[in-house]
Amino acid sequence: MMNNEHTSKQFEAELEAVRARVLQMGGLVEEQIKLALDALISGDLELCTKVENNDHLVNAQEVGIDEDCSTIIARRQPAAGDLRMLMTVVKTITDLERIGDEAAKIARMAKLIYSTDRLQQPRTVEIRRMSGIALEMLRKSLDAFARLDLATSAEVVRRDQHVDEEFRGVLRQLITFMMEDPRTISVSIEILFIAKAIERIGDHAKNISEYVIYMVKGKDVRHVTLEEIEREVMG
Amino acid sequence: MMNNEHTSKQFEAELEAVRARVLQMGGLVEEQIKLALDALISGDLELCTKVENNDHLVNAQEVGIDEDCSTIIARRQPAAGDLRMLMTVVKTITDLERIGDEAAKIARMAKLIYSTDRLQQPRTVEIRRMSGIALEMLRKSLDAFARLDLATSAEVVRRDQHVDEEFRGVLRQLITFMMEDPRTISVSIEILFIAKAIERIGDHAKNISEYVIYMVKGKDVRHVTLEEIEREVMG
Repeated sequence: MMNNEHTSKQFEAELEAVRARVLQMGGLVEEQIKLALDALISGDLELCTKVENNDHLVNAQEVGIDEDCSTIIARRQPAAGDLRMLMTVVKTITDLERIGDEAAKIARMAKLIYSTDRLQQPRTVEIRRMSGIALEMLRKSLDAFARLDLATSAEVVRRDQHVDEEFRGVLRQLITFMMEDPRTISVSIEILFIAKAIERIGDHAKNISEYVIYMVKGKDVRHVTLEEIEREVMG
Repeated sequence: MMNNEHTSKQFEAELEAVRARVLQMGGLVEEQIKLALDALISGDLELCTKVENNDHLVNAQEVGIDEDCSTIIARRQPAAGDLRMLMTVVKTITDLERIGDEAAKIARMAKLIYSTDRLQQPRTVEIRRMSGIALEMLRKSLDAFARLDLATSAEVVRRDQHVDEEFRGVLRQLITFMMEDPRTISVSIEILFIAKAIERIGDHAKNISEYVIYMVKGKDVRHVTLEEIEREVMG
């Protein structure tokens, strides 16, 4: 219950601080993916270790923001729109934390690959395009979160299909490699797990964008078709 | 703000209804996994389609429970413990919905396998043991949610390591099969994705158990060691 203007301003500042913290966490997660991909391409084992060690920073952000949200809800008893924003934050940071896990997984896999085998060039290239799309989706989903931008959110949802297509392409290519030379089976499986991790990053970015649409429109767009989402953001 | 006993009783009933709905959703998800695994073992393509088609029921539960929680928070302005319970519900149903997705994925993969190739017996057996553990974890995580049972929650967290070990075993076995007979590569990859889906189910059950520990103890135990969790539930 807002009992005066002062309290209301404080409340606004608290909400703004939470939003800023989510974006900060998003930036950290983005950086983790980039470093993991750099490590994968360069074979820099120290960088792999750095990414793995930094994962706890992402986790700490999640726990902290969660606590902030609960504190604000308990103390401020926010009304519909603000509550929706806070619930969106709670869900968004779960996805961000899991993107962080995928980054750590990529780093771990890269380590495994370089300590036993060498990445062949064509595979890296395929994964590079796929990860470019996934990273762009993450960046846009966070932008859309910051600016409450429906059109960008819908674009991210749409882009997820591209990541899925790229994944299927990588998979086909890896199967061909393995068939041609069964000695590449182990390393191909490791690359497959990396591709899977990147595909998941796309899924999480899509989830975040769906939460943003929900936050702005007050309508839940998870589990509806792309056409319905587009109709929703145009309306 | 509870202004009288009547309101308080209504509030209690609302919380209880939400808890019941989560358990109902959990039961539905459990059933979906069981049917997907049955379909995988029997090669029943109609059952695969049924599981895929039922996924929307799981999604609808998630959206509905989410709305219930937001309505209760906005209307009742719950205090610390009750708010924690509601936040736990919001997170739990996200994991349940994703377990539902994994069940649909298993059904889809089973369909793919049976429409092109035959499952060899040893692979099914390996997956069966792994999925037995994952299903048991899910059941126990829901039991622990219903009874606010810390010891069972900690047990689920511990069990996740077994699923991960089983997964690595299945992976090693599949790599051996593929090396011995490269014609099995495609079907082995499909089985690998199924194993991965089961491993994820274990992860989600573990997440739910960690939320329950948080709800009961008011302490966040995500991202801490197993030893710390055990110290926490004993204390």
